[in-house]
Amino acid sequence: MINKILNGYNVILASASPRRREIFSLLGIKCEIRASNIDEPISAEDPALQAMKHAKNKCNTVLKQASKQDLVVAADTIVVLEGRILGKPQNQEEARSFLRSLSGKTHTVITGICTGNTECQRSAHESTQVCFAHLSDSEIEDYINTNEPMDKAGAYGIQGFGSQFITRIEGCYFNVMGFPVRRFYNTITNMKLEGRL
Amino acid sequence: MINKILNGYNVILASASPRRREIFSLLGIKCEIRASNIDEPISAEDPALQAMKHAKNKCNTVLKQASKQDLVVAADTIVVLEGRILGKPQNQEEARSFLRSLSGKTHTVITGICTGNTECQRSAHESTQVCFAHLSDSEIEDYINTNEPMDKAGAYGIQGFGSQFITRIEGCYFNVMGFPVRRFYNTITNMKLEGRL
Repeated sequence: MINKILNGYNVILASASPRRREIFSLLGIKCEIRASNIDEPISAEDPALQAMKHAKNKCNTVLKQASKQDLVVAADTIVVLEGRILGKPQNQEEARSFLRSLSGKTHTVITGICTGNTECQRSAHESTQVCFAHLSDSEIEDYINTNEPMDKAGAYGIQGFGSQFITRIEGCYFNVMGFPVRRFYNTITNMKLEGRL
Repeated sequence: MINKILNGYNVILASASPRRREIFSLLGIKCEIRASNIDEPISAEDPALQAMKHAKNKCNTVLKQASKQDLVVAADTIVVLEGRILGKPQNQEEARSFLRSLSGKTHTVITGICTGNTECQRSAHESTQVCFAHLSDSEIEDYINTNEPMDKAGAYGIQGFGSQFITRIEGCYFNVMGFPVRRFYNTITNMKLEGRL
């Protein structure tokens, strides 16, 4: 189990996301939060590579001041609809536009993770398909008024009010929340087998 | 949105499950808890029909003492592996046996829901496929020692330590947690359109 493998390490979660913190808490992982304030520009590069690159940048920033017993975990989640990356909406108008474009369609959520200590780092990513119901204009307005969309990639959160708009997913649910639990377990298991943890 | 449709109703959740209570809270639904202590026998009948019947029984029990502004919501979740229903484990040995049988396989989680007021009731169900990773004996022992499996159908919870054993799901995640949010939204939307809510 994850908390057994990480026992003895000082785990540092390089993320300000309360959802990632919640997942770590569910897994019984005690961790310190050191959010790196890195700007995450969106480019034309492959979305999975971008997510992993962003996660690696966050991890490296925190690793600069890490000690031997530290294990830094960073993640970056992006929402991709028909090849286009939807970041966090800049304002309500953009949230409205994102939600209209997601309505009645299936999109992909990709989380890149980077796990590292002072000696080595491992990158991985996970993709999940998410099917959105058709949203009426009034549903979109009501949802925007909850303020939930504003700090989230793609302008929705699967875990709150947004849950009622999701008809189905295919893949890892926790990946959509922001952290692919099983993928992380595989990563640290491999690091341990290789004698890197 | 669900909380808008239910506005003005006294919502009663006929369930003792903390996970269902949590989902209602995420959806901003204020509700009263009136858990009915009905024994839920497992039979050879179709699992989806059983889940709906159990939910209906729970709903009816609470409806007997309901008033006009009450809306009672009941649910019953069952885990089905290769045609066999796995209930809540009676003891650690049964939890071990359930987890061994789920290991490396895909099972189905079915939740039956029943929503009713003093005038009418609606039943529905939702199925989700859940893929389990291969579990080693030591993982199973560690998981049982967390005590998480003991009060849960199929001997696991997708939301806690159990999350690390789930490689993917197909369908509604909240259904696996115990309450199919989108299905419930559709149900109450239809009740409203029919003038029953």
